[in-house]
Amino acid sequence: MRPSGRALDELRAVSIETGVTKHAEGSCLVRMGDTHVLCTASLEDRPPPFLKGTGLGWVTAEYGMLPRSTGSRMRREATAGKQGGRTVEIQRLIGRSLRAGVDRVALGERQITVDCDVLQADGGTRCAAITGGWVALKLAVGKLMKAGEVRTDPLGDPVSAVSCGIYAGQPVLDLDYPEDSEAGVDGNFVMAGNRLIEVQMSAEGATFSRGEMDQLLALAEAGCAALAEAQRAAVA
Amino acid sequence: MRPSGRALDELRAVSIETGVTKHAEGSCLVRMGDTHVLCTASLEDRPPPFLKGTGLGWVTAEYGMLPRSTGSRMRREATAGKQGGRTVEIQRLIGRSLRAGVDRVALGERQITVDCDVLQADGGTRCAAITGGWVALKLAVGKLMKAGEVRTDPLGDPVSAVSCGIYAGQPVLDLDYPEDSEAGVDGNFVMAGNRLIEVQMSAEGATFSRGEMDQLLALAEAGCAALAEAQRAAVA
Amino acid sequence: MRPSGRALDELRAVSIETGVTKHAEGSCLVRMGDTHVLCTASLEDRPPPFLKGTGLGWVTAEYGMLPRSTGSRMRREATAGKQGGRTVEIQRLIGRSLRAGVDRVALGERQITVDCDVLQADGGTRCAAITGGWVALKLAVGKLMKAGEVRTDPLGDPVSAVSCGIYAGQPVLDLDYPEDSEAGVDGNFVMAGNRLIEVQMSAEGATFSRGEMDQLLALAEAGCAALAEAQRAAVA
Amino acid sequence: MRPSGRALDELRAVSIETGVTKHAEGSCLVRMGDTHVLCTASLEDRPPPFLKGTGLGWVTAEYGMLPRSTGSRMRREATAGKQGGRTVEIQRLIGRSLRAGVDRVALGERQITVDCDVLQADGGTRCAAITGGWVALKLAVGKLMKAGEVRTDPLGDPVSAVSCGIYAGQPVLDLDYPEDSEAGVDGNFVMAGNRLIEVQMSAEGATFSRGEMDQLLALAEAGCAALAEAQRAAVA
Amino acid sequence: MRPSGRALDELRAVSIETGVTKHAEGSCLVRMGDTHVLCTASLEDRPPPFLKGTGLGWVTAEYGMLPRSTGSRMRREATAGKQGGRTVEIQRLIGRSLRAGVDRVALGERQITVDCDVLQADGGTRCAAITGGWVALKLAVGKLMKAGEVRTDPLGDPVSAVSCGIYAGQPVLDLDYPEDSEAGVDGNFVMAGNRLIEVQMSAEGATFSRGEMDQLLALAEAGCAALAEAQRAAVA
Amino acid sequence: MRPSGRALDELRAVSIETGVTKHAEGSCLVRMGDTHVLCTASLEDRPPPFLKGTGLGWVTAEYGMLPRSTGSRMRREATAGKQGGRTVEIQRLIGRSLRAGVDRVALGERQITVDCDVLQADGGTRCAAITGGWVALKLAVGKLMKAGEVRTDPLGDPVSAVSCGIYAGQPVLDLDYPEDSEAGVDGNFVMAGNRLIEVQMSAEGATFSRGEMDQLLALAEAGCAALAEAQRAAVA
Repeated sequence: MRPSGRALDELRAVSIETGVTKHAEGSCLVRMGDTHVLCTASLEDRPPPFLKGTGLGWVTAEYGMLPRSTGSRMRREATAGKQGGRTVEIQRLIGRSLRAGVDRVALGERQITVDCDVLQADGGTRCAAITGGWVALKLAVGKLMKAGEVRTDPLGDPVSAVSCGIYAGQPVLDLDYPEDSEAGVDGNFVMAGNRLIEVQMSAEGATFSRGEMDQLLALAEAGCAALAEAQRAAVA
Repeated sequence: MRPSGRALDELRAVSIETGVTKHAEGSCLVRMGDTHVLCTASLEDRPPPFLKGTGLGWVTAEYGMLPRSTGSRMRREATAGKQGGRTVEIQRLIGRSLRAGVDRVALGERQITVDCDVLQADGGTRCAAITGGWVALKLAVGKLMKAGEVRTDPLGDPVSAVSCGIYAGQPVLDLDYPEDSEAGVDGNFVMAGNRLIEVQMSAEGATFSRGEMDQLLALAEAGCAALAEAQRAAVA
Repeated sequence: MRPSGRALDELRAVSIETGVTKHAEGSCLVRMGDTHVLCTASLEDRPPPFLKGTGLGWVTAEYGMLPRSTGSRMRREATAGKQGGRTVEIQRLIGRSLRAGVDRVALGERQITVDCDVLQADGGTRCAAITGGWVALKLAVGKLMKAGEVRTDPLGDPVSAVSCGIYAGQPVLDLDYPEDSEAGVDGNFVMAGNRLIEVQMSAEGATFSRGEMDQLLALAEAGCAALAEAQRAAVA
Repeated sequence: MRPSGRALDELRAVSIETGVTKHAEGSCLVRMGDTHVLCTASLEDRPPPFLKGTGLGWVTAEYGMLPRSTGSRMRREATAGKQGGRTVEIQRLIGRSLRAGVDRVALGERQITVDCDVLQADGGTRCAAITGGWVALKLAVGKLMKAGEVRTDPLGDPVSAVSCGIYAGQPVLDLDYPEDSEAGVDGNFVMAGNRLIEVQMSAEGATFSRGEMDQLLALAEAGCAALAEAQRAAVA
Repeated sequence: MRPSGRALDELRAVSIETGVTKHAEGSCLVRMGDTHVLCTASLEDRPPPFLKGTGLGWVTAEYGMLPRSTGSRMRREATAGKQGGRTVEIQRLIGRSLRAGVDRVALGERQITVDCDVLQADGGTRCAAITGGWVALKLAVGKLMKAGEVRTDPLGDPVSAVSCGIYAGQPVLDLDYPEDSEAGVDGNFVMAGNRLIEVQMSAEGATFSRGEMDQLLALAEAGCAALAEAQRAAVA
Repeated sequence: MRPSGRALDELRAVSIETGVTKHAEGSCLVRMGDTHVLCTASLEDRPPPFLKGTGLGWVTAEYGMLPRSTGSRMRREATAGKQGGRTVEIQRLIGRSLRAGVDRVALGERQITVDCDVLQADGGTRCAAITGGWVALKLAVGKLMKAGEVRTDPLGDPVSAVSCGIYAGQPVLDLDYPEDSEAGVDGNFVMAGNRLIEVQMSAEGATFSRGEMDQLLALAEAGCAALAEAQRAAVA
């Protein structure tokens, strides 16, 4: 029934390739099917000004899409003169999600910026960015720990994200672009272990019931658990 | 236990005053306790360009805060040269939520812009904006129907929104600013009748369990039902 | 002869409601007929950088119109990415006018920002903003004096403003929108007591004689005197 | 008593050199003492969109200062990314003033843009820009009339502008920069023949009486009359 | 003598991997040593407005660097609100260079946009972008020819680019970042076959002789010839 | 053969008038035929932040064109909200060229900004700006030396610039606008004495041979030598 032939609760093929750029303190190329996102974590010794003297660290994120990562070319945001509303919304979500999984006292007064740049898009780019962003972050933190600059690991369970939605009347896991562009109801779920971090269900020209909400939450729990495995393997 | 002395499942005092500006096709001043939002609905005969010839209507929203609607003065966005990320996120949410409650075929090829301007803020401004925005929209649509330009009412159950969160370890309904600034987990729920339109739960530096999610959903259902009553009374 | 039936030298109904927002140090809602402007005065302990160490205070103003304060919806300036020329001109006028009525030594090294936001427009918004802005300013200064932070009152006679113009060949006082959009010659007069602060007469596609200028000055003197009464009553 | 030794009612040396650039339809370099402004009038066959089909013409103006036209270098507005408030205010004044002296029916459906660029500033640049701008405009209109594209001269008496102010307690004509930077009260007067077009008196940290206003108007009338002579000579 | 141990006239290892993204009409990942640039060519059926009705086609280019493509993270241009001067200069060069190798009549009234995004930078990114951009362009044009939409191949000899400079007193070919950051004199050469398209020699705090210019030209001729081989192999 | 009747290797009439504005530390109006550029050098005692404490000085440049310096009016960059790509490219070239002729240790920790504003354009404005910019710079440095603030002259041979190109199949020197708009190959050469500083040859829809490159270099050498004479005479 799904265009890709996947089962309703089946993730796309996941691959996480680490160490893909020589400059960043942590990096990976995450692939969720045909969605490919390059994630880098950049370390700065100084925290943002509002944290000076607090002893707390900060993790922030930025998101972008290459102009031809999509089926038809999009205008480059640098040319347009500003990041669009969708971009701003996504990068705020990525930053908030990653911070929820960080012990900011253990991190200490420094900032890590996670850049997530979509090389090829096929739906679910923000979820892939969170999943891959956590891997890049973990690798950068690993360097800090190896160098003795951070003593207690500020990261715990992997922060994973997956989209779910109602496609052709059925709750499905990990929508690709053909599904995403059809679904009237879909959303993103971010988890760490069995805890929720973000739930963002949206309906565009449709609504959903409390029962459907429960089914989607169940799909997301299973999907995030599988992604966490892949993340753990990648940073091992 | 709550700073305001309210019960865990108690809304703030709600008031919706309609017809507050002589120019707009629909308008109201919605008050949720000390949060006051002026909502206007402006009718344009032309739909946005991407809908020309489709027979479909459009509803969009814009959101703003007066610089001194808050405890300390905020920079005016017109001076800053752009709307901030939070503003963009909120107005996209308002527009999406209102559209979910509109039959765009019945509305016909026209656009209604709902402006939500916060005169005084005390938490929950985006929810008040959706609740009041629907009232302004309903009044504007009423004019179209009275004039015979629209035959079938494109609006059904009121679209209502309320925030919920975990404050001092307890799930609570309709957070005011003192609660909102403390809560590590909170979110917004948009409903029409007993159907969900948006669920946006966020954790900043915290996480939440599936059981807490269920409790928050239950609070939201009751809260939105009460708001819908107030909306129906206002437009009667 | 005037669309509203007013006499040539008759002001619209004036009302000044104070304390309309709980956050601002001073606030009022000024109504000149159907022109409604919300004015707030926000206190900052630090003066602008160019006054550091001089002992002098500063008063500045910002002006905005809600998108549907007017007959047809205007584009929101925050969305347009900048304040238009008219807005900039008006807020510079408000700031300059209010400063002319302030003893900046007595105020001391602090800044007060007066925000004037038009909720409903029917001509003469900049004059209403000055008149109401002075009231908000006076209330904020009153708090400073009560707290002993300012010893000598830095404010003297109320700063009041009114528009005058030549409508249908006759000099008239306090133009409303139907008059304003017809008048080829009109202007704004700002006074404190019997002293002039600003005179801005403009002709668009017309000219005026020295004799007409004298008549308009006389109308403005009477109008400002009446407004000053209302201002004094509001802050009493 | 004046730093320049001029009498209270004495203009600076005025010179208007026409035909200073080979591309513009009309141009002049106007010098009021050490204030030098290059004015060009550019003709476009199409009126602005809002006038299409009305038969009316349009005159608009833009103003700029070279970065080192002033005592200390100013930031280039093109680098700053926008025109400052002062610039916007000035170019709106220039455009409005010139239009007041144009018969827009006689001009026909076309637009003339007058650019006024300050090469060297010593006070009174906006007045020099209006005075010189009219000359450039007249020359451009002359070409249209010679070519038979315009039949009736849309221009009448020269539009002239001069500043006046209260310096060291005395009303003075045509302030230069040393006077302008000291004067608490000053303004600009635009006239055509014996008719007024704009009166803009401003007080910064001061006020003025009705009697002083009358003296300033008298100075301006004499000053504008002398400038009109120079303009007539330049275009003869 | 060179940090990398290369001979003075030795290129870095070149690799051009084609078909790297599923959406673009043409794409490649070009690697010059550690400089990696993703190039895509996007086809639009419409030419830019200024070419409508001329029968001529257009090729344009945009350039960007991922924020952490460099040793220390750069600010994202979409966040900064504009493309920097260096970016603008580079993308103008890429577009001009590629156009010099295109028969715009043969291409017909359509536009191809070549996006060059630097994934990892180690000097010479603009040259790699031109070399890789031509490959992406050739592949996109190939699709047009296969589909019969273009009859005569609008592309001839590959357009290749290489940098040269004076490092430690010696003319060297294809500078990497350690060399580039030391060289006082360096430049970029673009060629097609044995013809020159662009020569851009710059000195920062240094100068160079006519003899040195001749040596650099000779190095560039050999380098471009070798790159053209790699380009031909990639598109074969 | 040339539209102007000049010989292939003939410069336009050159004139350099110094001291043209009373405020700038150095200034000139350079005329290359009908191309007129006003150049000013402005001295700041502080170097840019990145040079603080290094003992090195800085020279930077900005470039602009008056809106009607050209045959048809161009949009003012301050109105457009940013400097265009061409402007940015040119001012970077001017700054880089002038710095190549400055001993930054001898200059000491200060910055000189050279503004080059085109009053009238007829081709070759960037070259005229460099040639005139050096004169303004030399005059400003002369003031510093006279005042004893700089001991050793940081400037040596004049920095001169000239354009060359292939017009109607022939290499020609110093293209005017009619030639420039026809030439498929042209470029700019910057020299100091017999040393090269910049070579920027570009082809738009054409290519050139190594032999032609050599001819253009020879023309440029002769042209720059003649310009250096004029520069030396101007500052004598």
